[in-house]
Amino acid sequence: MASNKAPERRASIGAQRNPASEEAILTAAAEILAEGGFGAFSIEAVARRAKAGKPTIYRWWPSKAALLLDVYQRQKTFDAQPDTGDVERDLAIFLKSLLSFWAEGPQGNIFRSIIAEAQSDPAAEKALSDYAADRRIHTGEIIRRAQERGQVPAETDASLLAETIAGFAWGRLLTGNANSPPEELERAVHQMVAGIIRP
Amino acid sequence: MASNKAPERRASIGAQRNPASEEAILTAAAEILAEGGFGAFSIEAVARRAKAGKPTIYRWWPSKAALLLDVYQRQKTFDAQPDTGDVERDLAIFLKSLLSFWAEGPQGNIFRSIIAEAQSDPAAEKALSDYAADRRIHTGEIIRRAQERGQVPAETDASLLAETIAGFAWGRLLTGNANSPPEELERAVHQMVAGIIRP
Repeated sequence: MASNKAPERRASIGAQRNPASEEAILTAAAEILAEGGFGAFSIEAVARRAKAGKPTIYRWWPSKAALLLDVYQRQKTFDAQPDTGDVERDLAIFLKSLLSFWAEGPQGNIFRSIIAEAQSDPAAEKALSDYAADRRIHTGEIIRRAQERGQVPAETDASLLAETIAGFAWGRLLTGNANSPPEELERAVHQMVAGIIRP
Repeated sequence: MASNKAPERRASIGAQRNPASEEAILTAAAEILAEGGFGAFSIEAVARRAKAGKPTIYRWWPSKAALLLDVYQRQKTFDAQPDTGDVERDLAIFLKSLLSFWAEGPQGNIFRSIIAEAQSDPAAEKALSDYAADRRIHTGEIIRRAQERGQVPAETDASLLAETIAGFAWGRLLTGNANSPPEELERAVHQMVAGIIRP
């Protein structure tokens, strides 16, 4: 689950956080997003609502996107690492869960805002790129487990496959097509996993 | 080549265009982007420079993103449909050419701006989604040719594979990683095409 990894990522930022203030800031940020969407979201508005100083927020989250990513991750409650014993089925569950999660709640729009931010703000780009790398490791576990079972060859690059699936999901989200037919997603994963070249 | 397809797409918009004005508008838009980037780009600025009316521009391009997409497509000069006789090699050339094209000139940033626009403007989202669908047909031709040769089974969904490759490329671009090692891209395409399941 994404939230289990958060403390690890935070440690790398360096600045020590006060858990109560951190909680107040993340809650304020989530409430502002839920009430007013991305348009209403600013570090200033979060600081006011959380009764925190802007410098404190910036010390812990170097960009608006970094704060958004933490809010987003806390709300991430879908099945990101299924383990059915079959790699194709696991990856299909992952892709379908991710897109449903984006399509059905506010999180899809939050993540779209983060990606949009990253196109003009280098700090946001760095936060997004680090986040995506972290997610590839996480999704790659599905493939590494299949390698341990002998279902997938050892030379398969788990990170590249995880990136392929994530890229497909991002493409759907960013074109307004997160709400995808499950059987189409299963077919997409089948092709990624089983290949298309005639044996 | 992308520009060959443009008249077809334009016909579907419905409003008849005056070729000289259209040329002036597209040239003005490209110059503004080259000089000031996306921050300097607005329909107003394009109208002023092209000596055209804003209503004319909006009649031909329903959103800023639609105009940006036409500018972007006119500058697209990479090898989008290689034909070496081998589907894996063709798709690898396509992916490497696309990412180099994005990394080496201003077009990567233009396309990033279009995607960012599409995250908050429904007209931009529609323009991007239509554009992506059109590109899938175009890239899918590589796979359909391989199906005619018998290299790829008839039941392979060419559009889904084209979408998979495009999604991978978008992910690299949007995280600031368009400048990718060619051998990594080749490995990614190899996995997409040859599959990962142990036979």
